[in-house]
Amino acid sequence: MSRALRQRLFDEINSWTLVDPHTHINALNPASQTLADLLGYHYFTELAHSAGMPRDWIEQHGLAPKELVGRLVAGFAPLENTIQASWLVEICQAFFGFAAERITLENWEALYDQSAAQMASPDWPQQVLAKSRLSGLFLTNDFDDPLTGFDPKIYIPCLRTDDLVFQLADPAIRERLQRATGGELHNSSQLRQALGKLFDHFVSRNCQACAISLPPDFSPRRGDPRQADAILHAIHNGETPDPDQHRGLAEFVFWTLAELCAEYRLPFDLMIGVNRGVYPGGVYQGKDLFDSRVSLIQYRELFNAFPQVTFPISVLASVTNQELVSYAWIFPNVVTNGHWWYSNTPTYIEHDCAARLEAVPRTKQIGYYSDMYKLEFALPKFAMYKRILAKILSERYIEDRGWSEERAIELARDVLVTNTERIFWGR
Amino acid sequence: MSRALRQRLFDEINSWTLVDPHTHINALNPASQTLADLLGYHYFTELAHSAGMPRDWIEQHGLAPKELVGRLVAGFAPLENTIQASWLVEICQAFFGFAAERITLENWEALYDQSAAQMASPDWPQQVLAKSRLSGLFLTNDFDDPLTGFDPKIYIPCLRTDDLVFQLADPAIRERLQRATGGELHNSSQLRQALGKLFDHFVSRNCQACAISLPPDFSPRRGDPRQADAILHAIHNGETPDPDQHRGLAEFVFWTLAELCAEYRLPFDLMIGVNRGVYPGGVYQGKDLFDSRVSLIQYRELFNAFPQVTFPISVLASVTNQELVSYAWIFPNVVTNGHWWYSNTPTYIEHDCAARLEAVPRTKQIGYYSDMYKLEFALPKFAMYKRILAKILSERYIEDRGWSEERAIELARDVLVTNTERIFWGR
Amino acid sequence: MSRALRQRLFDEINSWTLVDPHTHINALNPASQTLADLLGYHYFTELAHSAGMPRDWIEQHGLAPKELVGRLVAGFAPLENTIQASWLVEICQAFFGFAAERITLENWEALYDQSAAQMASPDWPQQVLAKSRLSGLFLTNDFDDPLTGFDPKIYIPCLRTDDLVFQLADPAIRERLQRATGGELHNSSQLRQALGKLFDHFVSRNCQACAISLPPDFSPRRGDPRQADAILHAIHNGETPDPDQHRGLAEFVFWTLAELCAEYRLPFDLMIGVNRGVYPGGVYQGKDLFDSRVSLIQYRELFNAFPQVTFPISVLASVTNQELVSYAWIFPNVVTNGHWWYSNTPTYIEHDCAARLEAVPRTKQIGYYSDMYKLEFALPKFAMYKRILAKILSERYIEDRGWSEERAIELARDVLVTNTERIFWGR
Repeated sequence: MSRALRQRLFDEINSWTLVDPHTHINALNPASQTLADLLGYHYFTELAHSAGMPRDWIEQHGLAPKELVGRLVAGFAPLENTIQASWLVEICQAFFGFAAERITLENWEALYDQSAAQMASPDWPQQVLAKSRLSGLFLTNDFDDPLTGFDPKIYIPCLRTDDLVFQLADPAIRERLQRATGGELHNSSQLRQALGKLFDHFVSRNCQACAISLPPDFSPRRGDPRQADAILHAIHNGETPDPDQHRGLAEFVFWTLAELCAEYRLPFDLMIGVNRGVYPGGVYQGKDLFDSRVSLIQYRELFNAFPQVTFPISVLASVTNQELVSYAWIFPNVVTNGHWWYSNTPTYIEHDCAARLEAVPRTKQIGYYSDMYKLEFALPKFAMYKRILAKILSERYIEDRGWSEERAIELARDVLVTNTERIFWGR
Repeated sequence: MSRALRQRLFDEINSWTLVDPHTHINALNPASQTLADLLGYHYFTELAHSAGMPRDWIEQHGLAPKELVGRLVAGFAPLENTIQASWLVEICQAFFGFAAERITLENWEALYDQSAAQMASPDWPQQVLAKSRLSGLFLTNDFDDPLTGFDPKIYIPCLRTDDLVFQLADPAIRERLQRATGGELHNSSQLRQALGKLFDHFVSRNCQACAISLPPDFSPRRGDPRQADAILHAIHNGETPDPDQHRGLAEFVFWTLAELCAEYRLPFDLMIGVNRGVYPGGVYQGKDLFDSRVSLIQYRELFNAFPQVTFPISVLASVTNQELVSYAWIFPNVVTNGHWWYSNTPTYIEHDCAARLEAVPRTKQIGYYSDMYKLEFALPKFAMYKRILAKILSERYIEDRGWSEERAIELARDVLVTNTERIFWGR
Repeated sequence: MSRALRQRLFDEINSWTLVDPHTHINALNPASQTLADLLGYHYFTELAHSAGMPRDWIEQHGLAPKELVGRLVAGFAPLENTIQASWLVEICQAFFGFAAERITLENWEALYDQSAAQMASPDWPQQVLAKSRLSGLFLTNDFDDPLTGFDPKIYIPCLRTDDLVFQLADPAIRERLQRATGGELHNSSQLRQALGKLFDHFVSRNCQACAISLPPDFSPRRGDPRQADAILHAIHNGETPDPDQHRGLAEFVFWTLAELCAEYRLPFDLMIGVNRGVYPGGVYQGKDLFDSRVSLIQYRELFNAFPQVTFPISVLASVTNQELVSYAWIFPNVVTNGHWWYSNTPTYIEHDCAARLEAVPRTKQIGYYSDMYKLEFALPKFAMYKRILAKILSERYIEDRGWSEERAIELARDVLVTNTERIFWGR
């Protein structure tokens, strides 16, 4: 009975059209051209490398897409147990009529050719969006992205600010910022003006969120403009900032971004907990890890200082999820956001999602985002989440708490459809 | 089969009369007078506020109870998914014949009037206790509570000591302590004497436990009386203690309380991990959160120093539960105690309770307490726990380990009934 | 259906012969002589002590085995709920024809005599190995173990190095090291030579791993030989090293061991997170606990420095498991290893194992080891793990992901049989 109920809930949930509130899609080239774009996703390259394939073998200069796919397929068997591998198989089944359970050295070439033929269709991105029932998706845009050449109602800009906060001492970043905004950056007020221009530009192009990923040791603090002035002045004079100055500048920029979010009424997506470059020998995008010893208490001053800014929050480690649940239960401006990266596997999603559903107001939960780099991944990733959501609702709401199916479905609609719209557009 | 088994176990477990070993009941006014006393519970006001209701709207001066209920009902829909909301509905169904699934703007007034009529009955508290099958419950008494005007066999005093440990530098607290004990507080021995008088008074009124909640950064240490003398002397001279002195004084008072627990043979309930006032803009009792980076290793010196004192321990974060399980498995004087506050939701209870049942001696687990402020909440909160307990026993003991139902029920009786009696009275 | 499926998977998994990759077996006396050897396992003595039995009662000098068993059986009822207790009952049922559910004061003597008679059989260890389907098992050998008197193809040596890393300032340890290796230890190069001789000796006796348990605050660092020289010189001159010197020496020895693992191509088992002697009043081996605030980021430098060394890693706390999953998913040389000690209970195994299966390449997971002191414990401990594995595979792979039973069984074989062989022998 429970299995049939889960399936019934899934089928209903899966029929909805929705917006994906966080991706890394390149709006100018959103879908894949070949299987190499799919198998080149860092989830597969890093797992293949972890299972023993040398990085050079994967990242060899000038490697043809088909050759890369052949290599990765040869190293795919050790990853077949992973949920990530199941995404790829589900893509091939859903989009390319792939009938087998496994991608093997025997069947991949036919799949490669068949899929390449389909992907060559000029409206392939639209086909993928339609089949995935996505009406729109959020991008992750560099601060100096011109944001042109695409429909911003479908490919919705999101201002990503990691570089501004953590790399502003880098001359290349400062130069890009100056080029994008046209002013000097010798002091904090010029910097604030430059950032404001970015917001102007982004908001004029339908940007719906500011976003950043943060290391576990970051604690936002109201920066001191005079300190920022001194640091910017020193940098301008060619001095290399010391760690304290780096941190001071990061705090100042971050706080200024929060002020601009308030001014421009943009939610500020915080993705908390990543350490970059822990494994420098790893494949592209497969070098980052984390220290789970992080607490949202580090964000206390921020949450109190900006009651008017909504903070959709993602945490990297499942052990931080209970803090997120509790902070979202207490702070009106804290919202739970998706299941991020290393927590985006069924066991952690189930534990974390169930805890959120039980204790956070239903209006304050953004259930899921795909984090994808290519459009094809929304379908299997959302499907994974929806299956878990259907499981939780059937077991914990319908069976344990006696809810009707209709009521459970309403709750699912909030976390998958309604909240995304209200939190980002209803502000 | 599993569902029927769970129901059968629940029905049996739910038929027992028991003692609730931790509440915030006011013994002079234990039950509710109107729905406002129920909906005014901080779980609802803080969730309603978190979901968008301004604090002023909830805490408006002079607001009539019925008006408050109307407002909170208007803001109830966003909370309906939470387990806390289910407690309220279950109360209304169990006590007031409420037949609907949801409390809405259409049905709340009839419910309000109906419930108020029942609550007006002079023996309403007794009715609630009987229906909830509570033979007694622990209070949370201020150190200077006269403890009169109620039957201490039913409303069992518990000496709450947060103020003594953390606020003794506050003149108002010192004055209250002096008034309650009649002596001076110029040095550590006078202080110890005063605390001893509190224990005399409480124990003479059937007090069965000393209790305290503790912030995550607290590490008990045997305080130095000379240091305490110096601090008390300075305070007496009107000096404001610095953070080190504050901590030194807290350590001294805490350690002295542990010594008095040994002397008076009282268990010392430790509730570990809360940060107070994290969100100062929150509603009454809805301002506290936590930092999950806490370890029981901080209590190592304490547990070793007081083998004769039983420490029933509650942890605020589920991620600390495995430490609690392990410390209770090793230290004879460490006992697991309930599922506290932010961990008092089904997903966390299930994970934490199952781990305890599997690895802590059955005699060392106090399964649950309600933490309630009004008597009506014991019924749904204990029912929530009992349903989870029945689930764990049926799945993990009867099905997985082949236990008989009788044997599983014996285990449930230990954690719900027998242990509370033995740990608090059998000492 | 699900129960039948689980049983079918378990039966298949349970039919395989395998190697236990971590135990504390004494190869010269591997199995038990009486029930006292079983009930004397620290899991029972520490739980009995925790439940109230005085240490002296358990560790009384000159106590006859039967008398000890009588005492522990008298204190066994409070532990019956624990999974550890179920191991003992399962041993008695599987090996000694014990038909009851509980070991009681009424039935233990017959069991004692019956089991003693069986254990007296000269080939009892072989009988136990055969019934447990173990073809071999790893030992935990002191660095100066002569490694003689047993078949190292079955009792496979493993070089345990805690003493070398953390106790080298102890004259007794240094003397043992000198006696084992025949040289002086006045400087770092002599020390390195001595350690190399240990590796020579161990590898010549079929040693397949180097192993160590580590406290939560340990962070491996490339030690400075000159600093090590100075410390060794000071120790040689009878000076007592201060905490910094202790740490410096530990870092140097640890790093040198990693270098030797690279040179000798031995995996280096890291068991991360234990604090020793937290409860000094505890029974033998029942004094250690942990601080769950530990992170694998502390091992970043090590994992990067030794890509050629495989690190099978055990973590003590379930809250560290997600880091282990993520580090094993990214670092080619990090492998997940078993469910250690305080995490070796069904709730934590299930959560941790499911997360590993979903996100770590199937070739990089060593599913389980028994950690046993006496051979009889492999059977129930592995059975516990296999039941959980069968549950996860049936629910999360066969039902949720549509895998065939054959495919699920292949995955189980990897984590239980194939990987152990490849990781330790295939290098």
